[in-house]
Amino acid sequence: MEELDLIRRKAVQIISEEDLEKKLKSGKKLTIKLGADPSRPDLHLGHTVVLRALKNFQDMGHEVVFIIGDYTAMIGDPSGKSKTRPALTYEQAHSAGESYFKQVTKILDPEKTKIVFNSEWLSKLDLKDVLSLASKYTVARLLERDDFKNRYENNLPLSMHEMFYPLMQGYDSVAINADIEIGGTDQTFNLLVGRELQRNYEQEPQVVITFPLLVGLDGKEKMSKSLGNYIGIDEAPESMYEKAMKIPDDVLFDYFKLTTDNIDLAEAQKLINEDVIAAHRLYAEEIVRLYHGEEFIKVAEERYAQVAKGGIPDDIKEITLSTADSKEVKLCDALVEAGFAASKSEARRSIQGNGVKVDSEVVNDINATLDLTSAKVVQFGKNKFVKIK
Amino acid sequence: MEELDLIRRKAVQIISEEDLEKKLKSGKKLTIKLGADPSRPDLHLGHTVVLRALKNFQDMGHEVVFIIGDYTAMIGDPSGKSKTRPALTYEQAHSAGESYFKQVTKILDPEKTKIVFNSEWLSKLDLKDVLSLASKYTVARLLERDDFKNRYENNLPLSMHEMFYPLMQGYDSVAINADIEIGGTDQTFNLLVGRELQRNYEQEPQVVITFPLLVGLDGKEKMSKSLGNYIGIDEAPESMYEKAMKIPDDVLFDYFKLTTDNIDLAEAQKLINEDVIAAHRLYAEEIVRLYHGEEFIKVAEERYAQVAKGGIPDDIKEITLSTADSKEVKLCDALVEAGFAASKSEARRSIQGNGVKVDSEVVNDINATLDLTSAKVVQFGKNKFVKIK
Repeated sequence: MEELDLIRRKAVQIISEEDLEKKLKSGKKLTIKLGADPSRPDLHLGHTVVLRALKNFQDMGHEVVFIIGDYTAMIGDPSGKSKTRPALTYEQAHSAGESYFKQVTKILDPEKTKIVFNSEWLSKLDLKDVLSLASKYTVARLLERDDFKNRYENNLPLSMHEMFYPLMQGYDSVAINADIEIGGTDQTFNLLVGRELQRNYEQEPQVVITFPLLVGLDGKEKMSKSLGNYIGIDEAPESMYEKAMKIPDDVLFDYFKLTTDNIDLAEAQKLINEDVIAAHRLYAEEIVRLYHGEEFIKVAEERYAQVAKGGIPDDIKEITLSTADSKEVKLCDALVEAGFAASKSEARRSIQGNGVKVDSEVVNDINATLDLTSAKVVQFGKNKFVKIK
Repeated sequence: MEELDLIRRKAVQIISEEDLEKKLKSGKKLTIKLGADPSRPDLHLGHTVVLRALKNFQDMGHEVVFIIGDYTAMIGDPSGKSKTRPALTYEQAHSAGESYFKQVTKILDPEKTKIVFNSEWLSKLDLKDVLSLASKYTVARLLERDDFKNRYENNLPLSMHEMFYPLMQGYDSVAINADIEIGGTDQTFNLLVGRELQRNYEQEPQVVITFPLLVGLDGKEKMSKSLGNYIGIDEAPESMYEKAMKIPDDVLFDYFKLTTDNIDLAEAQKLINEDVIAAHRLYAEEIVRLYHGEEFIKVAEERYAQVAKGGIPDDIKEITLSTADSKEVKLCDALVEAGFAASKSEARRSIQGNGVKVDSEVVNDINATLDLTSAKVVQFGKNKFVKIK
């Protein structure tokens, strides 16, 4: 299948088709831009929609430039009011950049992938440059962005600096002279700002291509880490497989369409109609193949079969706690030490949420202790097991 | 009369009275801010409304800080679209600053007057600082400014950088930690931005005092150089006197109230009611006294009496043109050489506007020549005469 067709089958909008054709026909190596937020460095399947499109462009010979938005990430919340947006350090922002590169090159060709940090040019702007940038856009145009408009019209606070972010993002396109910028449909406005700013800076305007947002495992919200409805591309094969089996039937076709390139969509649709469990299995196998390799499919499948039955797998890890001299240990401490929970409070939340079983029985007392006179099998969520001795 | 009463008798609004009293009672030397636009360096009576208030503050022991807005003046129009707003050079902006100082110290005490240039702090801001400044103000608050609001609501272009100017002006107050800022009523919005920004930067907010805009000699528009309805504080005594006699009757009281401090307003009002010409004469004398001195009143009065009759004064200057060997000269060249017009095109406009007389006859042919076989008396406007030989 032609790469361009693969892009088109996923894309929502191409602005404009004429410009895209002209650029592709020019024969030059195009610069394809994708912006990335270093404060959210873990990628999931939702991100792969655009990553696959980037890969399609690479297969056509073009270069992908990832712009890590380290500049604003390092500023954090400039009003100092929000504690939910802590400023990243230089080291954090740059290590996020490295982590991005490692993750995206699971899909992308590292030879044709460049990572740049926008502090490189944004930190050099002085007030004069900022005014010049701001002079290229009207207030009315910026207030057309849905969330700005809603907040302005409903008298909700909209700070002046927020209006600046689309301009800065657009200026990134100018800085790297992007030929094409791709993003989710929620980014359409910002991508078009880049297109217009390039015109104002006398560059050829970038082509904007937008892609649908992948719905998460809940079947409702956009896939996101914070909602917990995601499949991470770094997840273990077993976990990936199991999560894939839980994709709601009515969005499974979108997963085929947006996150795979090798499956014929007509066949996928047919299978969904005829045997939706087999369709899930086909999809689960494909993503384990894509992110881990053929050889991991079988074991993931077997693990899933066991867990689905509610059984305990045969090959679970055994650990000895550091408090082994004691005859009992608090369950929440054991969860932390086993690496299932990052903190005691997370451990307690899981216990309260009926997410923890000891020897196949749910334990929901946060003060529960484990009697270690005999080994105990602790299950965390659906898929994590450990035998504690 | 108490200085504070003099300020109050001119002021439109004091925000807030409580803050003003507190600051005055603190006993410390207060910093009174006035912003100045270096692209319009010639001061007229309209400017003296606030200058007199500044003088009143100086007489109370406080210090006046003039902020010359050189930073934006040097940028000019950042969009590069407008040719009507040329960028000033560093030298032009700073010579405008010197010229300001020279002019304002006709009213102000030079010992208590400081001139600063806002490029000193604005040129040091980087994008991070700009975002921090912008985060302190909402879009909605800025769109409350009348001209912004009107343009936004009527779909007229309003560029993002324009929204920045009030913030920059407000930041000037932060930079000098102003105690009080004064300005015309048309500046109320901007002055209040300064007051709020200071709060956000954890300074004591400045008191804002606004003054009426002086109506020009046309009795309608705000006095301004570009409308030609002004009395410049650098003008010759004769010209000042003559213009003062032409102030429309119904605004004469405002001139007394806003541009003089030594005349009792009740008496001025009484005289206006009883003998408006005598009232004009009283005012004309006062401003010649203020800007030139007692000794210039008499000659200005006599010159006015003659011109008013339509006569030619006795003591006019005689000049010999550089083209004296020729027997005739173009009228427009003569006007330039006599120093009446800055350029030939200005000379032609005056001729077309019936503003030029030769030997008491209006000449409105732009190609007219002067026959220099005998001396000619050329009159430019109402008040400028020269005998050309």
